[in-house]
Amino acid sequence: MSTHAARLAALRDQLSRDRLDGFVVPLTDEHMSEYVGAYAQRLAWLTGFQGSAGTAVVLPAEAAIFTDGRYTIQVRQQVSAHDWQFVGVPETTVSGWLAEHAGEGARIGYDPWLHTAAWVAEAGAALAARRATLVPVDTNPVDAVWPDRPAPSDAKLTVQDTAHAGRNAADKRAEIADWLAAEQADALVLTALDSIAWLLNIRGGDVAHTPVALAYAIVAADGTADLFVASDKLTDAVRQHLGNAVRLHDRAAFAEALGGYAGKRVALDPAFSVAAIGQALAAGGAELVLRRDPVLLAKACKTPAEIAGHRAASVRDGAALSRFLHWIATEGPKGTQTELSAAAKLESFRRESGVLLDLSFDTISATGPNGALPHYHVTPEGDTRIELGQLYLVDSGGQYADGTTDVTRVVPIGAPTPEMRDRFTRVLKGHIALATAVFPQGTTGAQLDAFARRPLWEVGLDFAHGTGHGVGAYLSVHEGPARIAKPSYPGGGPQEPLRAGMILSNEPGYYKAGEYGIRIENLLLVVEREIPGGDMPVLAFETLTFSPIDRDLIDPALLTDDELSWLNAYHARVTEKIGAELGGEDKAWLSARCSPVVR
Amino acid sequence: MSTHAARLAALRDQLSRDRLDGFVVPLTDEHMSEYVGAYAQRLAWLTGFQGSAGTAVVLPAEAAIFTDGRYTIQVRQQVSAHDWQFVGVPETTVSGWLAEHAGEGARIGYDPWLHTAAWVAEAGAALAARRATLVPVDTNPVDAVWPDRPAPSDAKLTVQDTAHAGRNAADKRAEIADWLAAEQADALVLTALDSIAWLLNIRGGDVAHTPVALAYAIVAADGTADLFVASDKLTDAVRQHLGNAVRLHDRAAFAEALGGYAGKRVALDPAFSVAAIGQALAAGGAELVLRRDPVLLAKACKTPAEIAGHRAASVRDGAALSRFLHWIATEGPKGTQTELSAAAKLESFRRESGVLLDLSFDTISATGPNGALPHYHVTPEGDTRIELGQLYLVDSGGQYADGTTDVTRVVPIGAPTPEMRDRFTRVLKGHIALATAVFPQGTTGAQLDAFARRPLWEVGLDFAHGTGHGVGAYLSVHEGPARIAKPSYPGGGPQEPLRAGMILSNEPGYYKAGEYGIRIENLLLVVEREIPGGDMPVLAFETLTFSPIDRDLIDPALLTDDELSWLNAYHARVTEKIGAELGGEDKAWLSARCSPVVR
Repeated sequence: MSTHAARLAALRDQLSRDRLDGFVVPLTDEHMSEYVGAYAQRLAWLTGFQGSAGTAVVLPAEAAIFTDGRYTIQVRQQVSAHDWQFVGVPETTVSGWLAEHAGEGARIGYDPWLHTAAWVAEAGAALAARRATLVPVDTNPVDAVWPDRPAPSDAKLTVQDTAHAGRNAADKRAEIADWLAAEQADALVLTALDSIAWLLNIRGGDVAHTPVALAYAIVAADGTADLFVASDKLTDAVRQHLGNAVRLHDRAAFAEALGGYAGKRVALDPAFSVAAIGQALAAGGAELVLRRDPVLLAKACKTPAEIAGHRAASVRDGAALSRFLHWIATEGPKGTQTELSAAAKLESFRRESGVLLDLSFDTISATGPNGALPHYHVTPEGDTRIELGQLYLVDSGGQYADGTTDVTRVVPIGAPTPEMRDRFTRVLKGHIALATAVFPQGTTGAQLDAFARRPLWEVGLDFAHGTGHGVGAYLSVHEGPARIAKPSYPGGGPQEPLRAGMILSNEPGYYKAGEYGIRIENLLLVVEREIPGGDMPVLAFETLTFSPIDRDLIDPALLTDDELSWLNAYHARVTEKIGAELGGEDKAWLSARCSPVVR
Repeated sequence: MSTHAARLAALRDQLSRDRLDGFVVPLTDEHMSEYVGAYAQRLAWLTGFQGSAGTAVVLPAEAAIFTDGRYTIQVRQQVSAHDWQFVGVPETTVSGWLAEHAGEGARIGYDPWLHTAAWVAEAGAALAARRATLVPVDTNPVDAVWPDRPAPSDAKLTVQDTAHAGRNAADKRAEIADWLAAEQADALVLTALDSIAWLLNIRGGDVAHTPVALAYAIVAADGTADLFVASDKLTDAVRQHLGNAVRLHDRAAFAEALGGYAGKRVALDPAFSVAAIGQALAAGGAELVLRRDPVLLAKACKTPAEIAGHRAASVRDGAALSRFLHWIATEGPKGTQTELSAAAKLESFRRESGVLLDLSFDTISATGPNGALPHYHVTPEGDTRIELGQLYLVDSGGQYADGTTDVTRVVPIGAPTPEMRDRFTRVLKGHIALATAVFPQGTTGAQLDAFARRPLWEVGLDFAHGTGHGVGAYLSVHEGPARIAKPSYPGGGPQEPLRAGMILSNEPGYYKAGEYGIRIENLLLVVEREIPGGDMPVLAFETLTFSPIDRDLIDPALLTDDELSWLNAYHARVTEKIGAELGGEDKAWLSARCSPVVR
């Protein structure tokens, strides 16, 4: 029996002992995080699936894994079709499938620390229609049969200097106290890890590539806070930084603390709060005030210090990427490099800065057909040689104390085809159209998204992902609440008005299945712009990322005069910003690659 | 006492007799129509307000009139500030104001044939918070004190030929029967007048500029229908056309008929159904199935015959408008014409075709500062002389049996200023950007709207109305369900995917308060376009309107090569399409005005 088949059998035995007729295994943690620590990778342990989003349902005689369109191929490569049915979401929902497949009167278990209240209500209603029941478990049955389950990380907390953050934590807590007063609420429960890190000006090391610590926080109406975090993570420096206004508790004390708000109005964000939290508050007699996490918007609008930090990080990061682009231009055509060796080389350039704290996500290093998978994840087994005639796509970023970067470039290995140049140039036209957009206050990402797609739409092409996501300040590389995407993109991000100080990616692409992938990604800062003679103040974007866009992939005949001017001005700024960071050969290469493109 | 003060006093006396402490007077009819007949113009009769949207509330000691931003100035000019408070919506809602101003325990009357159930629920809840009550009236108290209230129109019904409609009525009713089967419903109540006209291939003359008849219809699951309409409107030809499958009843029998659906599932659209209808169905024991009117989408996607008809109407209408543009170019600078004389002249050119059935709305004939009011309505009292140095804006259309037109042009009277040319050219750039958009199936008007605004946004300008509305086929000039507008535009239109066969306006503008208004409006047909080498089928627009765009207002230096090509190709088509319809001098003028613009 294979490893994963044995694990599935062990879980079924455990469910039998627990008198459950099924169990739901999501890919998340107690904080509804996008990226989760190794200790919470129950879906991967059980099924072998390595993607970043999915859910499994185990019933006595059948089991199913639910993934979205990004993982249709990958899930079939990584998970046994003998043991698992593959189900596509959102066409089929977990609740809908459960209602069809759970037996009459079945007791289906779920871990209330891993699902939102909304999911519990939906799945419970779907099962009720089958006279089946959704049953919360006290301990997760997967953990019971996972003998070598990693312990949660014991990484120490660190202090995010006010010099980097631009505001001290007392000031931020006071803002939340004002918000609580306006909401006539007594306390705010914070569960999103990056919200807690931002509010208290602390960082952690518990989640890969995202500098956050596993913790909960409750902010009181007087602006003081209770922080629930493993005590061995707390250094003296962090204790001193947090001060008397932040009361420290062990993370395990959180559930009990929720019972202490009888008669109080307690605010929490249902999108980031697992069902157990609302249940514990309600059981203790608290009145729930469901609101969007007030930190989301405050955190998204960067302070001048954060913006200055990001500019410095961008220059440092752009210099490292440019050295890599020079290297791959030289080494790629020799046929001796692979996706993994290239990713390692890029990381080494970033590390040479001496201040890289982490990558901001697993580098997407994808050559040829692999580039056509927007979320490609290279593994030792799948590592592919970079060869002549391919497009090599690299989407990467660094975590620095002064900023989080995210950038994508495409390099032709040898001469690109005319079709590749046509597609790349159209993606570039879309990128420029978004980068140069000017728009009124109140405009949303959904209103701007089509600017980035129009040059592709014109020839019957498109790309099946969003155009831009928010980016944190030495925090999550994917940050809410705003997003530049089609209005149908889930989660409401495209409906959020853009505001000055937000940092968002600009990353249109084009993907030809089985052949190549193209994406051009820079980060944008939303800035206010005063226009003489205008009727109203407007917002615009300032591009923050500096690294050459491959000129061999550009067909200048497809660019308008304005687009060509943008490209040449951008390249002039790249040279100006990062030229001084580079040594002789790298510098000369950069100058040549950034010289004006002409028709 | 002025006329309107006397009317208000009379209404208050009537309310006192009816033992009501207040009454709500909306501007609508029993069909939630956008344009309503003279018999239903209660708001105008009571207050003097001539705008197209508003509500009045009369309390014993105070009275308020509610209008939106379009009418902020106009309402103050037309309505007595002595008797009426002016309240802006949506900042303040009628319900919210009522809750603040109705006395404790007050009985506020409403006519259940003039409000949606949603409004009744909202206002009722707001009043309940004041321990006041919303009370339906049996007869409208305004009607009781309006001695010379016009009778509803007795215009005859006419048959809309299958040759024009492209589908016979039996086929349309069968489509609704299929829809009812899919919804497992027994009947559909249709209240929107244009839906009834479309379904039965009939037209009427009861509403100004919209060829519909005051009627209700109920479609049964077998595809037969009951039509409730005044019998004196029915000619033999119409009776024969409707046939045996359409049972005829007097309009007054409708309310009672609603009581006959005990135990049946009856579908109706809450957006077009007044509260009285749902109340009567429920009282009779029917189960309400709230759905969007299924005719909306079917009607919006024009048949090939309707498209061919529109093309013919466009040529005829464009020729009339072009003769007018020639005339105003000659007569305007003489200073002898006014807004009303110009509108009359334009109507006379349209009437010379011999087939004009009506204007499609009151012509917006606005010179100078009046043009800055997008919904300007010229009256004999406000009629303004057209003078040198002004921009003259004319937004007009015709109702023809083969199509409904809507077009806006702007003419400089004498030489325009550089600022006028800059603004006009930016509006033109937006107009071209929308006209040339290519987009995937599923794209909504909200996604395309920014194309039309970008050239204005770039200099800190915008326009405060939607970019495009649907247009009917010899029906309403404003037709749902789709709309090209910012996502915040109310009613959901911007969120409706565009579909092949829809006809929408393309009318960006710019308005400088106190100086001038600019709007360039053509109608667009949504067409499918096959793109060789594309990954997917796409949609695009075909411009249907042919009339010159004033070259003296265009600054060619602001146009890209592609925009200049579009303009010259458009003008070449204008000459080709309507040149043959024009006599010698008009034709020569058109050729000159349509010759290529060069830089």
